[in-house]
This record gives sequence, C-alpha cells and structure tokens, in this order.
Amino acid sequence: MIKFDENEKVESVKGALALRPEIEKVVDKIQNKGFDGIYFLGIGGTWASGMQVEVYMRGKSTLPVFVENAGEFLTTGNKRLTDKSVVIFSSVTGSTAEMVSAIKKVKEIGAYVFGFIDKPNTPLHEFCDDCVSYPENEQLKFYMVANRLMHNNGEFPEYECYNEEMERFLPQALVEVEKSADEWAAEYAKEIYEYVKEHPDMPYYFIGAGNQWGATYSYAMCYWEEQLWIRTKSVSAIEFLHGTLEIIEAETPVTLFMGEDEQRPLAERVSKFLPRICKNYTIIDSKEYELKGISEEFRGSVSHLVMHAVNNRVDVHLEKEFRHPMVIRRYYRQFEY
Amino acid sequence: MIKFDENEKVESVKGALALRPEIEKVVDKIQNKGFDGIYFLGIGGTWASGMQVEVYMRGKSTLPVFVENAGEFLTTGNKRLTDKSVVIFSSVTGSTAEMVSAIKKVKEIGAYVFGFIDKPNTPLHEFCDDCVSYPENEQLKFYMVANRLMHNNGEFPEYECYNEEMERFLPQALVEVEKSADEWAAEYAKEIYEYVKEHPDMPYYFIGAGNQWGATYSYAMCYWEEQLWIRTKSVSAIEFLHGTLEIIEAETPVTLFMGEDEQRPLAERVSKFLPRICKNYTIIDSKEYELKGISEEFRGSVSHLVMHAVNNRVDVHLEKEFRHPMVIRRYYRQFEY
Repeated sequence: MIKFDENEKVESVKGALALRPEIEKVVDKIQNKGFDGIYFLGIGGTWASGMQVEVYMRGKSTLPVFVENAGEFLTTGNKRLTDKSVVIFSSVTGSTAEMVSAIKKVKEIGAYVFGFIDKPNTPLHEFCDDCVSYPENEQLKFYMVANRLMHNNGEFPEYECYNEEMERFLPQALVEVEKSADEWAAEYAKEIYEYVKEHPDMPYYFIGAGNQWGATYSYAMCYWEEQLWIRTKSVSAIEFLHGTLEIIEAETPVTLFMGEDEQRPLAERVSKFLPRICKNYTIIDSKEYELKGISEEFRGSVSHLVMHAVNNRVDVHLEKEFRHPMVIRRYYRQFEY
Repeated sequence: MIKFDENEKVESVKGALALRPEIEKVVDKIQNKGFDGIYFLGIGGTWASGMQVEVYMRGKSTLPVFVENAGEFLTTGNKRLTDKSVVIFSSVTGSTAEMVSAIKKVKEIGAYVFGFIDKPNTPLHEFCDDCVSYPENEQLKFYMVANRLMHNNGEFPEYECYNEEMERFLPQALVEVEKSADEWAAEYAKEIYEYVKEHPDMPYYFIGAGNQWGATYSYAMCYWEEQLWIRTKSVSAIEFLHGTLEIIEAETPVTLFMGEDEQRPLAERVSKFLPRICKNYTIIDSKEYELKGISEEFRGSVSHLVMHAVNNRVDVHLEKEFRHPMVIRRYYRQFEY
C-alpha cells in the first residue's frame, strides 16, 4: 500500500484517545463552573467538524451546544455568546487569520476558550484558557469532549464501557478499514480520473446525512476542490430530495456517504432512489466495514471516522492518478486577498 | 416586460405587510406565555428562509432563535425542543410529507406551533396553534415575526418608524427593482443560455453572505437546479475563501450576491478577490438599487428581497431562453421515493 504507515496511524489514534484524562479535566471544570452555551467555532473544515459534533449531541443531550463560523462571528456576531459561554475550537496551524481574530473577539467578550491546536506555541495559544496540543484527529477530540459533557449531564450511562472499547479497538479497527478499502479505492480513483479526463467540467455530486454531512461537505470542498482541483457539489441527503435530485440523470456522477447514526434512514431513502434515475453512482457505506471489537450500538458515533479512513485511501490514489500533489494551492496562502 | 403584473406584485407585498396586526397578536401572546426556544422549521427552500431569519436576529437579539430541518428533526430529533418551545414554519402547499410528519412530532412533544400556509384548509392546518393564511412573501412574514420579537425584547427601538417606512415604500420599491433589473436580466439570461449550450456540464458557482446566504443556497438549488435544470454549486462567501476558490479559473462562471447586512464585508472580500482570478463573474449588488423611501440603516433588512426581485426577472428570462417551463419536474412529486 502506497503512502501508508500502519504503525504511525495506529499510534496517532491511540495518542488522541490517550488525551482523555486531560480533556475530562477541562470539561469537568467547565461544567462545574457552569455556562449558558457551548460554541464550536471554526472555519472551512474545522467548522464542518463543529457541525458533526453538534448533530451528534442534538438528539441526545439537553445541553446548549452550537456551531459558529469564525467569519460570520466577526461580522454578524452572536448576541447569545456571552462571558458565561464556552468556545471550543480546533486548529492545525494555530494561525488562520479569521480564527485568530474571532478568538480575540471571544476573549474580549470574556467567554472561556478551550482550544485544540496541532502544534505547540502558535498565535492562537495565548487566547486559550485551556489548550490541548496534539496533531490531527480533530473529530475524535471533539467527540471526546461531547461524550464527557453528556456523561457529566447524565446522558451517557455507557461512558466507561464505551471508552474502554474505543481505546482498546478503535485504532486498529480504523487501520483495518483503510487496508480493506485500498484495492477498491485504487479502482475508484482510476475511474474518476478517466471520467474527469472526458468530462472536466462536470461536478461530482456528494450526498451525506447526520454526522456524515459535515464529512461530505468538507470532503467535497477541502479535499476534492481545494487539494485535488476536481469539481464537486455537496448536499445533505434530505435536501437532495428537495431540489438537487432534478439535475441528476443516468450518467451524472454521484457519491453517497452512508453512516450509522440516527439519520441513516435519510441516506437510505437516497440509496433506494438513486438507482432508479442514475447508473453512475457510488455508495460508500460504513456498515460494510467490520470494526472488530466495536459494539453495534456505538458504531454510529464513529461512522464518520470510518468514512474518513476510506477516503484517505481514495485521496492517496487520486493524488497518484491525477499526478496532483495534494499540498499545492493555486491561491490559498499564496498572496493576500 | 414579460410575465410581469405590476399591480399584482405591489398588492401581494402590501397584503403581506398588512398581516402585521395579526402577526403581532400571535407574537405578543407567545412572548407573554414565555418559551425556552424558537425554532424555524423547514425543508428545502423553507429551511433556507429559516436560515435567513436566524442570521438576521443572531447579531441583534439575545432571544434563543434557531433553525431546524424537518428531515433531520424526524430522525436525529432535538432534545432542546420541548413543550416550552415555539415552532414557526411556512408552507406553500401545506402538505409536504416531511413537514406534516415533523409538525405532528412537534405537537406530540407539546410545543406551540405558529404556521404560515399559503392556502387555507391544508393537512398542516390542524396542527397549528395559530395560523396565518396568505400566499407568498415567506421571508417577509418571517422577518415580521423577527422584528416583533426583537421589539418586544427591547432590541428594536426603531420598530414603529421602520414599519411605517416599509408599509409605505417597500411594495413599490421592490417592483421598481424588478423594472430596473429587467433589461440586464434579459441579457444575462441570453449569456447563460449561450454558455450552458457550450458547457452543459459546468456548474454555475453562486456565492453569498449573511441573509443572502439562504437566498444563494435556495436560489441555486430550488430555482436553477430544480426548476431550470441548470447545474450550480452554492457556497457562502467566507467558506468560498477557505476551499472552493481553488477550483475557480479565468473562464469559470461565478455569480456573487452582495447584500447590505453585517456580512457585507465578507462578500466584499470575494468581490475584490474574484476579478484577480476570474473574468466570467457576475456581481448582483442590492446597493445598486434605489429603494425609494427606505432609509440607509434599514436596507440590510430587505436586501435579500431586493436580490429576490432581481432574480425574479432573471428566472423569467431564463425560462424563455431555455424554453423550459419552470413548473415541470423530472422526479419531484412524480412518483413515490
């Protein structure tokens, strides 16, 4: 397998899960102190991760948890975000301009700031009341916060056994997903290359629901558009059925991400509808991956990570097929705008 | 001007604005009763209208106002929506399956339901605690609710003079927008037809911010994709700058909607960036339309209606250019799925 270091991947997830005592300490402090709202603040991909944790908690928790976009916060603001609020963010670089300005504004308001920053000693560090420095695994970190919040709020009785299972089995289970997806991903990437060569203007349609929606949105935008320069349109499963469906015909390329959380029925509606109008569709279903050691009831909480693991392999092969190094950018951070 | 009845349009907006005493009575009752949250519930275009009213209030009001998607509510649910909550919706047909099921579920929870339904005597009527029946003008109705909520909450001191101005000048001002946009819209539609004929696969990129974002999202999806079968991708201004920008080149078709609310600076960033990388862009700026009688400070609250008026003319001409009656659907409500 190209660009794949199994040990490094296992250790990365293990290390993220090992942050639990540190995360728990911060979350417990926040809940003991009290708050009028918790805001996951982000921009681009980190905003999408906020959407994933919000929808994860929406149906399970009475806690007031929201998502806020840094650019919108800097202009529209949010009158409900006060000095009794908590802002949680994640940043890879710790230096994204809008994030630095937004977190500065949050501190002026007097809210409590809990940051996850991949690198130590970045401009964002100084504004954090608490900060965890550890690379990657953004969604996992957010979900660990969510799980502790719900546990402390009496909404997650399985908390201990859940964590035991995840810590014991998740790192290897995700790596096994990548291994078993690789062959298919290589074929899929070849097909995509051939299709795009013939149809350079056509967008790939990406559809997802629940915690797959944030994944769908950011995968289409931050990976295919930004890193691979392939056209996409992403739309949530239920919204697809209320508009975008009309533009799909037999040959239109559509990829549906199916997860295992409460919104699976919305994705299932699309999976039943699609074959009736389209023959150029792909369904990636987290259910088809084993996840050894993870109980049925907990699979929904990690199905976006399964999708991410599958897409890791797709990306590696797309990068090769398109001869397009994913690190290059036309415009982003190339000049001021 | 084709498909344009000035008097009918003026009377339609006038009639909507005349609903104010009826709307105020309901809003006052809701606020006297008290609530733990107000949820604008919708799906497709009506969900987008909910997004517009939420962002309108977000920076001005401490009231807990949220948007909820009917399909997501039916699956994920929302633990914070309780028997002390208020649900507000709008429906043209009063019979959309997901809306009927979602409002039924809301009533089971025991929340208060305030509906706007275009037609009388529809399936959704029986679940409303209060219902206003009047055709069209969905966004105006929602904003009238928002304005009264903020007035009662001490957040809208200009309420009386605002309404006086709107009731006196808005109906004619919006009609004048349509009239002054018509010639340009006819040309624009011709260009679009020629472009799409040569590039049938290429999506038109639509960008908007603030209360234009809901307009951008639903215009791209519910008008071009659903009613005209033209490909689009919509993205908010700030998110465009964090991903989608990379897929734009000199010849890519991009349309930017510029409004006059707090997020105008985000659209301005895009308007300055775009010409440096693209020459096939169109900017529709509400600021270029007069709106006789409407004060500068109130223009932001209606700039999405200005955009809607401009796009009304674009649609009429697209329908003609593409010889595509906007009422036809390939799939929606054609069969069960």
